[in-house]
Amino acid sequence: MREIITSGFNPSIKYLRSLYNTKKRRNEGKYILEGYRIINEAIESQVDFDSIYFTPGFYKSDKGNHIINKIDDTVYINVIDKRVLEEIADTVNPQGIIAIANEIKYDMVSFLENASTILVLDRIQDPGNMGTIIRTSVAAGVDGIISLKGSVDIYNLKVLRASMGAIFNIAVFSGIDFDSFWNIIEKYRNKYRLISTDPGGDKFYFEEDFTKDIMLVIGNEANGIRKEIIARSDEIIKIPIIGKIDSLNAAVASGIILYELMRNRSYKY
Amino acid sequence: MREIITSGFNPSIKYLRSLYNTKKRRNEGKYILEGYRIINEAIESQVDFDSIYFTPGFYKSDKGNHIINKIDDTVYINVIDKRVLEEIADTVNPQGIIAIANEIKYDMVSFLENASTILVLDRIQDPGNMGTIIRTSVAAGVDGIISLKGSVDIYNLKVLRASMGAIFNIAVFSGIDFDSFWNIIEKYRNKYRLISTDPGGDKFYFEEDFTKDIMLVIGNEANGIRKEIIARSDEIIKIPIIGKIDSLNAAVASGIILYELMRNRSYKY
Repeated sequence: MREIITSGFNPSIKYLRSLYNTKKRRNEGKYILEGYRIINEAIESQVDFDSIYFTPGFYKSDKGNHIINKIDDTVYINVIDKRVLEEIADTVNPQGIIAIANEIKYDMVSFLENASTILVLDRIQDPGNMGTIIRTSVAAGVDGIISLKGSVDIYNLKVLRASMGAIFNIAVFSGIDFDSFWNIIEKYRNKYRLISTDPGGDKFYFEEDFTKDIMLVIGNEANGIRKEIIARSDEIIKIPIIGKIDSLNAAVASGIILYELMRNRSYKY
Repeated sequence: MREIITSGFNPSIKYLRSLYNTKKRRNEGKYILEGYRIINEAIESQVDFDSIYFTPGFYKSDKGNHIINKIDDTVYINVIDKRVLEEIADTVNPQGIIAIANEIKYDMVSFLENASTILVLDRIQDPGNMGTIIRTSVAAGVDGIISLKGSVDIYNLKVLRASMGAIFNIAVFSGIDFDSFWNIIEKYRNKYRLISTDPGGDKFYFEEDFTKDIMLVIGNEANGIRKEIIARSDEIIKIPIIGKIDSLNAAVASGIILYELMRNRSYKY
């Protein structure tokens, strides 16, 4: 049995704690996973880990053993006091395990050259929506997601939980500022049709031809897509609303359009 | 200005507090709304109120005035100490207003005789999903929802928030036990086709003919629909999954199928 760290001043503990800050996490290129289920999913999706923190009880358990056997030798393992781990964790019941993983760095240029369906998120705020949109994108076979600055951090723990592990299986470019996005759509204007979803759209989503390469934009829960992006779009599509309600939830709207898009392309299911 | 209630032992306060218990709420046929936005939506949707609790500040504000002018004379108005109201409220920032509303009692028989699209929820657990499903149902023009026992309370505050006021505009029958549901589907077997959604379905959702009267069943987030319901279904439909993920979120799946259903019936948008 390894030595059990009990002091919150231990450098490994201090480092773990520091990564609960979004900025620090982004600067370090790391993110945090809590709990057996998602850490196991991450391992199965070949996520690259920096270190794993176990409680003594979890370390000795079957699940603990399963994790230790599956991870790379280079991953640093810490056994820490249960009280210390629970105090650091965001989840009420972190199940005795927290991991630090290394962000995957996707190459934007090769992604843009090769993708055919890209989802663009303009300031999605709710972590549950963000996670669900990532999950739906993987299900619908989207090639990747460009999340513009002002959206919730994709490595927020609530986003990771709602994504149900989908985040490990899709290219996500996050924190992309507006100027960079503008450059991308200018540079690739001949490859991608830019399609915005907005209640003021010109046509219904099922009237759209999705067979070309597409960037589909989904906007903020309350304010929709920025007007500059709407103005620059090749097409603005809308979803009909029959009953007495203003709009659909952003994740539901994404699902309805992405599934229409995929069907329209007659993917072989 | 009315008298300001400052004691937590005041009977009106004790009654309000008691309704934060789900069982008590159900027995009384009441539910609670917190915050200006949803209470205002409820008023616009002709919800029947029992009483409203204001903080002194909110009572005197423009929004407070707006509410007071719009509600019926029979609604009992209380002005209570800010500290007391915040201590009772579920929301971190209840914005100085809490209301007790009377549940609408829909007539099940006349509903079943006249509806053409019914959504059946088999043990939906997550309040966000439940609220989003209700919102999506209103948007897609569903006639009503039968929520089976074991699903989250439809008057849970998180459900109400996620529904964005949709709950005031659709018939919802909640807490329906399995035997009652069984009787309904037996009695109306000639009117409604019972369609379950399950990954083991026989056909894809877009291959289904939705033009007849339909009861569409959506199941629990982790375990899906009970096997007895699946076995009794006229049709079991599935949604294709392209990428590496097990399933879609229940609210997203509902949205994809309900919008296909509505389109299939060629509603005039």
